[in-house]
Amino acid sequence: MSQPSYFDHHRETLNGGINASRTREYWTAYPENPSPRVYGENAARDGEAAFKAALNKNFDLDQPGIIGTTGSEKSPYGFDLGVSYPKEDVEALVSEVEAIRANWAKASIETRTGICLEILDRINKRSFEIGFAVMHTTGQAFMMAFQAGGPHAQDRGLEAVVYAYEDMTRTPAVARWHKPQGKRDPIVMEKHFTVVPRGIGLVIGCSTFPTWNSYPGLFASLVTGNAVIVKPHPGAILPLAISVEICRDVLAEQGFNPNIVTLVADSAEAPLAKKLALRPEVKLIDFTGSTGFGNWLEQHATQAQVYTEKAGVNCVIIDSTDNFRGMTANLAFTLSLYSGQMCTTPQNIFIPEGGIDTDDGDKSFDEVVAALAAAVEKLNGDDERAAAILGAIQSTATLERVTEYGTGDNVILPSRSVPMAGFDQATIRTPLILKASDDSSYSAELFGPISFVVPTKNTGDSLAIVEHSVKNHGAISFGVYSTSDDILRQAEDVACRAGVAVSVNLTDGVYVNQTAAFSDFHATGCNPAANAALSDTAYVSNRYRVVQSRRHI
Amino acid sequence: MSQPSYFDHHRETLNGGINASRTREYWTAYPENPSPRVYGENAARDGEAAFKAALNKNFDLDQPGIIGTTGSEKSPYGFDLGVSYPKEDVEALVSEVEAIRANWAKASIETRTGICLEILDRINKRSFEIGFAVMHTTGQAFMMAFQAGGPHAQDRGLEAVVYAYEDMTRTPAVARWHKPQGKRDPIVMEKHFTVVPRGIGLVIGCSTFPTWNSYPGLFASLVTGNAVIVKPHPGAILPLAISVEICRDVLAEQGFNPNIVTLVADSAEAPLAKKLALRPEVKLIDFTGSTGFGNWLEQHATQAQVYTEKAGVNCVIIDSTDNFRGMTANLAFTLSLYSGQMCTTPQNIFIPEGGIDTDDGDKSFDEVVAALAAAVEKLNGDDERAAAILGAIQSTATLERVTEYGTGDNVILPSRSVPMAGFDQATIRTPLILKASDDSSYSAELFGPISFVVPTKNTGDSLAIVEHSVKNHGAISFGVYSTSDDILRQAEDVACRAGVAVSVNLTDGVYVNQTAAFSDFHATGCNPAANAALSDTAYVSNRYRVVQSRRHI
Repeated sequence: MSQPSYFDHHRETLNGGINASRTREYWTAYPENPSPRVYGENAARDGEAAFKAALNKNFDLDQPGIIGTTGSEKSPYGFDLGVSYPKEDVEALVSEVEAIRANWAKASIETRTGICLEILDRINKRSFEIGFAVMHTTGQAFMMAFQAGGPHAQDRGLEAVVYAYEDMTRTPAVARWHKPQGKRDPIVMEKHFTVVPRGIGLVIGCSTFPTWNSYPGLFASLVTGNAVIVKPHPGAILPLAISVEICRDVLAEQGFNPNIVTLVADSAEAPLAKKLALRPEVKLIDFTGSTGFGNWLEQHATQAQVYTEKAGVNCVIIDSTDNFRGMTANLAFTLSLYSGQMCTTPQNIFIPEGGIDTDDGDKSFDEVVAALAAAVEKLNGDDERAAAILGAIQSTATLERVTEYGTGDNVILPSRSVPMAGFDQATIRTPLILKASDDSSYSAELFGPISFVVPTKNTGDSLAIVEHSVKNHGAISFGVYSTSDDILRQAEDVACRAGVAVSVNLTDGVYVNQTAAFSDFHATGCNPAANAALSDTAYVSNRYRVVQSRRHI
Repeated sequence: MSQPSYFDHHRETLNGGINASRTREYWTAYPENPSPRVYGENAARDGEAAFKAALNKNFDLDQPGIIGTTGSEKSPYGFDLGVSYPKEDVEALVSEVEAIRANWAKASIETRTGICLEILDRINKRSFEIGFAVMHTTGQAFMMAFQAGGPHAQDRGLEAVVYAYEDMTRTPAVARWHKPQGKRDPIVMEKHFTVVPRGIGLVIGCSTFPTWNSYPGLFASLVTGNAVIVKPHPGAILPLAISVEICRDVLAEQGFNPNIVTLVADSAEAPLAKKLALRPEVKLIDFTGSTGFGNWLEQHATQAQVYTEKAGVNCVIIDSTDNFRGMTANLAFTLSLYSGQMCTTPQNIFIPEGGIDTDDGDKSFDEVVAALAAAVEKLNGDDERAAAILGAIQSTATLERVTEYGTGDNVILPSRSVPMAGFDQATIRTPLILKASDDSSYSAELFGPISFVVPTKNTGDSLAIVEHSVKNHGAISFGVYSTSDDILRQAEDVACRAGVAVSVNLTDGVYVNQTAAFSDFHATGCNPAANAALSDTAYVSNRYRVVQSRRHI
């Protein structure tokens, strides 16, 4: 059953990841450039064809406990996907997975690691197909769907494998223990250490980043020997169905029961996440989504280790800048990218009411705001380019929120609909920028392309508000612009006390809402937006335990 | 403020621990031999004098929030310690600790590690004093109090420092990130990674191993930058008060606020653990004690990461042996050591009703039981030797339990009181061995010198019962005796499925209830007896988070 060849075959990838995670230097295993030179001459066309071939069909998975079909995904670009997935009897499926998971648990660390690396490699080869599936479930523009849903997600999956492999192999499989006894013979024992998984891992996907937010938990649980049940968001099943299918193919080829990885698709009308989460066999849960459901899981699924990424309110502080144009351009792109539907998009931008110093002279609060609005408007001035940056709005709730907030008298920049050739019904909207009136208007998360400019007494005031906001409402990103070393030190202190990553003076090709696997941690795990970081040792080390056996020899 | 000299000074100890934790070979930093050649000519006498000098006095600690005194420790050897400790206003103390903890959080990893190593070194130098304090609170015989309460506890503290140091330094403090941009200049960023603690760690001690069970949590939380509040069991305060005093001395000498480590003594009448555990500033809790209170902490102290070691029912399976005399002698010592008041002492011994094969011919169930009882009786036949092995019974509840269970008609070996010269009132009892009648008689933990011999249909039956018992009632140790490789493989499979460490055919100088730091994990964290192991990466990695700051350069 053991196939060391996959481990050997992908050893360089594993070592590259280990090294990068320790140096935090730039490294990637899966090229983000969708070029034919990288992915093959026909990769784009074949990927799109494969995606289209899946539409309006049953997505077959030979799983236990199937009692019908489910699925009603709609592309935010305006059409029904028409894909039907197996509908599962949760009890039957979970019982069967529990019954068959022992062989995977007993496979060697190298076998499991090799298989996970092979799965990631095959997922990578299908990045175009998965990219189209991500595009037409999340609404991401194709380039982003390809990159964030493909190679970047794969890198995050590999990152979890890397951390888990390093931690599991920190303890040797066998040790010889010689205890000196003075003049007598030493006591000698042989000790065997076995990594044992916790049980079944449940991965609950989200609608906006189905692969990127699911691969870390999926691979962290799988490589440590757990079986994994993937429960996608009803609006974004296909990318994870393809991923699960690949997992099952590789497992079966290697002689394992493919039900080590299964898919449980559900619908908004008949949700299954709670039922799955409370099953006693489920010992690990990875969830990305609302604060309400994340908190429910943490409170109720007490039989499991629960890893949650929930809502947050990301902040930017503008104090001063030596590159006013670069700053507004950078922020304009940040606010526009995927219409603010990233968990890392800033919502609140704090600016002193007395204005700021810049390389272009002093700017009043209103001038800063006007320049930012103008930059956003300009960036999205051309419909074709706008659609390629903004993508489409994933959910009706987000669309309605944009409409609702767009009617107030505090609108700085209205949101407009952007037409897209070939997709008449696509729900594309430019960012809505509002001026905050009081705390209550901006302190909760308003997911989607809605941001506030907030006047503060001064930057000290901005820092105090941000610290309070992150501690109480959570955040995954935090940006600061200042030419003062003292202010930047204060901002870093706030970041440490509140537990949020900070990006300083981004005016070039890096945006506060982007993180790079192996170098940037995604979330910290110490503010209300998430109880874990992607990825660190803490994210993997509780997914297994070590059981030892010792005897005299 | 930073004193790299301690880090450099103890660097070899740190490296030795890192190496040993990775090879799991024999290694110790603190000699377990209380010889004058190791600890100094007058160490024993000076240690005893220091212990005696502390009796019937106030134990002064210059802490905030003191509102009186508390303390009513009684030696199980029959006298009141008469030591009074500061009585604390919890709100005042916690608020002050929260207010002053920033400097320690901001100290470098090397500074904190060096200070923890220096504290451990000074604790080691006071091993005799602490040994007497452990003896006269827990009832352990002096040799065990010295070893388990001194060097072995110090090794477990060092082990936690080792794991935390390795995990914290896995991420570099600074990284340079170059992302190629084809023909354009690469994007270059500098990234800073800062270890930030969770807040305040609360360590709740137990009455039987006040230092051994507290040092891992104390040092794991402290070295990762948290402030630590130590709340000893009301019956075993002195060993931890001395330890806290040493922590405070070293911290103050190094320019830190000594209130980074504080003691909260309480009494059975006015317990403070719940109040402390629910304070929002308390983010980490380490607890050793009853299942009831451990479960309460897990359910209610949801603002904190909670590490618990609770009750368990340890089992031994006897299938066959090629060293019958060695087996019974080994088990007799195991059952007698500290009168079964170890969380690792076996309670239930499963033996096939049809008897077993041995090197001394076939033995019936009754013959095996008789030989075990005889070995226990013989070991404790001499009063002086018995007292040195058994120690005294720590609590009235345990004493009463021995009396209660000693009156049944299923007594195989009655418990007797052992007199001890110089300590008329010492509560010394030999092990009580009972024959199990039905499941309900032995399935719950009966803490103290009470064990059951349990007849089973065969060893397969024994294995099934043990698997069920460990999964449902928890266990920290599991012993098996068999000459059959197949049975031993099955026992190891049971150990992996149930999540308990197994010791095979112990007939020599190693006992199932003893573990060696750096080589043996104590508990696994995957059965009801404990939710964490001492020590592994999982035990340390959630005690801090990494906050990053990045900027273009």
